[in-house]
Amino acid sequence: MTYQAPVEDIRFVFKELADLDGILSLPAHSGLDEETVDAVLNENARFVQEVVAPLNRTGDLQPAKWEDGEVRVSPGFREAFLEFAQGGWQGLQHDPEWGGQGLPRLLSAATSETLNSANLSFALCPLLTDGVIEALSIAGSPEQRERFLPALLEGRWTGTMNLTEPQAGSDLAQIATRALPQEDGTYRLHGQKIFITYGEHDMAENIVHLVLARTPDAPKGVKGISLFIVPKFLVNEDGSLGARNDVWCASIEHKLGIHGSPTTVLFYGSGKGDVGEGAVGYLVGEENRGLEYMFIMMNAARYAVGVQGVAVSERALQQAVAYAAERVQGQALEGSAGPVTIDRHPDVQRMLLTMRAITEGIRATALCAAGVADRAHAAADEHERARSKALYDYLVPIVKGFSTEASIEVTSLGVQVHGGMGFIEETGAAQYYRDARILPIYEGTTAIQANDFVGRKILRDGGTVALGVVEQMRATVKGLEDAAAAGGDDAAALTLIATRLQSAAAAYEAALRHVLENARQDIRGVYMGSVPLLMLAGTVHAGWQLARAAQACHRHQQAGTATPFHQRKLATAVFYAAHVLCRAQGLSDAVQAGGLAADYANRAI
Amino acid sequence: MTYQAPVEDIRFVFKELADLDGILSLPAHSGLDEETVDAVLNENARFVQEVVAPLNRTGDLQPAKWEDGEVRVSPGFREAFLEFAQGGWQGLQHDPEWGGQGLPRLLSAATSETLNSANLSFALCPLLTDGVIEALSIAGSPEQRERFLPALLEGRWTGTMNLTEPQAGSDLAQIATRALPQEDGTYRLHGQKIFITYGEHDMAENIVHLVLARTPDAPKGVKGISLFIVPKFLVNEDGSLGARNDVWCASIEHKLGIHGSPTTVLFYGSGKGDVGEGAVGYLVGEENRGLEYMFIMMNAARYAVGVQGVAVSERALQQAVAYAAERVQGQALEGSAGPVTIDRHPDVQRMLLTMRAITEGIRATALCAAGVADRAHAAADEHERARSKALYDYLVPIVKGFSTEASIEVTSLGVQVHGGMGFIEETGAAQYYRDARILPIYEGTTAIQANDFVGRKILRDGGTVALGVVEQMRATVKGLEDAAAAGGDDAAALTLIATRLQSAAAAYEAALRHVLENARQDIRGVYMGSVPLLMLAGTVHAGWQLARAAQACHRHQQAGTATPFHQRKLATAVFYAAHVLCRAQGLSDAVQAGGLAADYANRAI
Repeated sequence: MTYQAPVEDIRFVFKELADLDGILSLPAHSGLDEETVDAVLNENARFVQEVVAPLNRTGDLQPAKWEDGEVRVSPGFREAFLEFAQGGWQGLQHDPEWGGQGLPRLLSAATSETLNSANLSFALCPLLTDGVIEALSIAGSPEQRERFLPALLEGRWTGTMNLTEPQAGSDLAQIATRALPQEDGTYRLHGQKIFITYGEHDMAENIVHLVLARTPDAPKGVKGISLFIVPKFLVNEDGSLGARNDVWCASIEHKLGIHGSPTTVLFYGSGKGDVGEGAVGYLVGEENRGLEYMFIMMNAARYAVGVQGVAVSERALQQAVAYAAERVQGQALEGSAGPVTIDRHPDVQRMLLTMRAITEGIRATALCAAGVADRAHAAADEHERARSKALYDYLVPIVKGFSTEASIEVTSLGVQVHGGMGFIEETGAAQYYRDARILPIYEGTTAIQANDFVGRKILRDGGTVALGVVEQMRATVKGLEDAAAAGGDDAAALTLIATRLQSAAAAYEAALRHVLENARQDIRGVYMGSVPLLMLAGTVHAGWQLARAAQACHRHQQAGTATPFHQRKLATAVFYAAHVLCRAQGLSDAVQAGGLAADYANRAI
Repeated sequence: MTYQAPVEDIRFVFKELADLDGILSLPAHSGLDEETVDAVLNENARFVQEVVAPLNRTGDLQPAKWEDGEVRVSPGFREAFLEFAQGGWQGLQHDPEWGGQGLPRLLSAATSETLNSANLSFALCPLLTDGVIEALSIAGSPEQRERFLPALLEGRWTGTMNLTEPQAGSDLAQIATRALPQEDGTYRLHGQKIFITYGEHDMAENIVHLVLARTPDAPKGVKGISLFIVPKFLVNEDGSLGARNDVWCASIEHKLGIHGSPTTVLFYGSGKGDVGEGAVGYLVGEENRGLEYMFIMMNAARYAVGVQGVAVSERALQQAVAYAAERVQGQALEGSAGPVTIDRHPDVQRMLLTMRAITEGIRATALCAAGVADRAHAAADEHERARSKALYDYLVPIVKGFSTEASIEVTSLGVQVHGGMGFIEETGAAQYYRDARILPIYEGTTAIQANDFVGRKILRDGGTVALGVVEQMRATVKGLEDAAAAGGDDAAALTLIATRLQSAAAAYEAALRHVLENARQDIRGVYMGSVPLLMLAGTVHAGWQLARAAQACHRHQQAGTATPFHQRKLATAVFYAAHVLCRAQGLSDAVQAGGLAADYANRAI
């Protein structure tokens, strides 16, 4: 099953929705032009299609293998990772100071999507390395950056995030790994970490673990957690590798999906290495501020996992579209001379369009968020940077929470389009359904995203950012109404989109106001509605971006510059409004059921 | 992980919602009393809990194995099936004339649910045998019944349905298996069937295949299909087994789930048996009426697969509830001295209650439908039988389509409740997520159910049955309003249920009227809304039954006969109204988007 990077749609979103022109005009990107952006997209497409995508099934069928503490990755992964490193893909978005290319997030988000579509398991390793680079870039000391960043950016080394312990999953306050200060300023770590993605493998020379642990006098809870760099091999002054550190992979997990990605149990301090007992670690920043630094990494990873949701949806969509265009079964509804391909049947069209509409909606939302991140990072005006930062922070849980939950629906529909064949593993559709299931769990479950959304992104600023977005949605509604009023073939379609976006935005606003008004006296009711609110936000944001896309397509039609792509895009936007956006009211109703639902639920458990 | 048959809820549904008293007063069940019903439920619970449930993981980890045309089932399945047979469970609902116990469908639906909860893969074999028994009871000749039914009812033999061929899945018109008439009145079958559940195994002495095939002069399409009995071993006059017939298992599938159930490819007529070339088959009924007879079996199987949706949901729910009650993580929202079990967190409660509310809603709908089937079968009054038959026919696609789609949501939530542990196969939650995925596909995909629903159950009678049910829903709303008006602790809760059921029933009615009014001029638009309509019907029916349950609980509270069960049940009903029933409007909006969505979708493919 081949995968084609959706370059045309990515370009459309860049230009029409995510303000590529504006981002290219930022001083930080003055050396970049649209041709270069296209060249990167094209080369990325070639690389992921030819090198990475063919390994997707391999990873599923021949998972990484643990033997005696070492992990051998799936066949072909090592070679592909070498190509990835040599192509400079790991450094794409990172600071040229450390060897990166400093390209906009907008672009790296797109290349991250295609890499993940090609092979979710493979792409996880660079995804986590990105997080480590980001955290060290911001919180590492000059020596630490110099020692670790260049090799990470080159893809010679990879990175991991070590948070979870058996008793400390969503609740990091329970972290028990100890870090004992040594006279030379280093620390020795003792403890066990679980669910560590690519915690051990043979794709790179070294692995840089970022580990949360407690120093002896640390306060209890999350305020007593520090962050440490623990390299698998110590790094000499000259950058060469030294002693094998005391961190060991005890086992890897047997998982529902992403078989190609080794999920490891790591033991720190079992005394087996070259350094005596205790893994040598280097404190990042100050003691007890570990969670704050880790959040830098987590925010990067959360956004990136949201993009994984887009990625696996796109892959499932492409396979379903291809199957439905080939599989012959049944007569056309209007009658036909013989059996037709199943993509002529209304319900198969409904499934394919639902998949496409959701996928394109979450892609547009994610890429627009990346554009906002670029402005937060590099806008000339300080206020615009601050405004963009607030908007991006608001968007991250939406991108993470909604894209990943939506990917379960999309991959499930992908199985359904295949009928009985979808349930047969050889077909491949089932893999996406299995792989996608981790996405709403890792890097903070959907509930964690929703708590963050309600607590930090809605309540903290009194809903300012969220309600501001609702106003922008209303402006889009107005624009669509004006376009529809001018008549034309698509007037009814534009009216439908406008009407449904209007209702959905109103439903979202009502839910936001319910949360703002009730948080104080009905905290349990508000938090019982937090996931529905987040799903509502995602549903409406995706619908809004598709509505904007419809506007853009209509403009092209008016200007005579429309292509078949624009026609298809408009149809996808119509379908989202018709079949998906209308879920908004029900989600809003769930939020507004509030305390009554919560009281009874609490009694019923 | 243990499974407990939900006997208390089943009894509640029997008594309060499905009119057990009325069914026990039918002449056909005059020998039956409530104590016997309870005894059957209890003995069934013991059997499935002790014997069948422990084999669920075994089946997943050690699937059936194909070797040289023979299939060895998972360890323990054989012995468990022997106990099943000896316990008389296969004959529970069937005619005493053939050795059955003639118990009401209401009861056998409940015991089928628990058997499937215990082990979906194991239960599939009896499920299909039930269908064969049903088809032969109605369409078989007296000789055929005498020869095949007793051994099937005893569980000495099992049965299969042979419809699908590589080119003929949902479209049975494409069936190509040939049946050549012989001089002795038998036929010889040649062809290939795929996806045949338990098409070969070693749990029983013989396998009775019901096979769709074409005779030489048969008309094209579905009007030229005949139904044949093809036993694995021919059966002698005295009932002993004779020659090995020419039907062979070529392979079994590697599937996403239900690993314990062998899904076989069967070759008819490869000339390897004791009978020469061509499998010996016996025509059931008349030539070219095969599809009609198979529909008897399919309707039984469709209902039963709907019950599988209830079953796997219940199993996933029980595991999630148990995990959430043990797993300690995080502080209580209102503050707590230390970490609490996760079932204290609002979002975990939301997930558990969503799982429970959907599970209990689809159970109530399915069991009420079984009660309707009993009246269709055995009511004294001819008109009541006809009315009940029409109502049952209307309910079958709802039970099949909605319960199975809902089970995907419930089992997915089951994984989510477990967090990262849910993605680890050892936990077991992932198995339900994998197993459930086949349910909306086999025995007619959700689209096929939806086509049946719109075409045969809504349009054919001009919506009479469906709109009649809407009126009954309104009566329930009125009852709840009256109860709420009388005041009391639960008045607000009853009002919420009434309000939401009122809106949902209105949304359902609006969608029905849209379909009735537009089917002629906008067939594509109507069929593009067929699955949303079916999901809407299921959502509203489940909500209606839970609303009736809330009424019953309230009555018990007023009467002083309420138990903790009733309190929990009321809370579940409240939660369904608050968080699930409110999806109705969005589904109705999707249906009503109709032709506009369909036009654009058709262009976009």
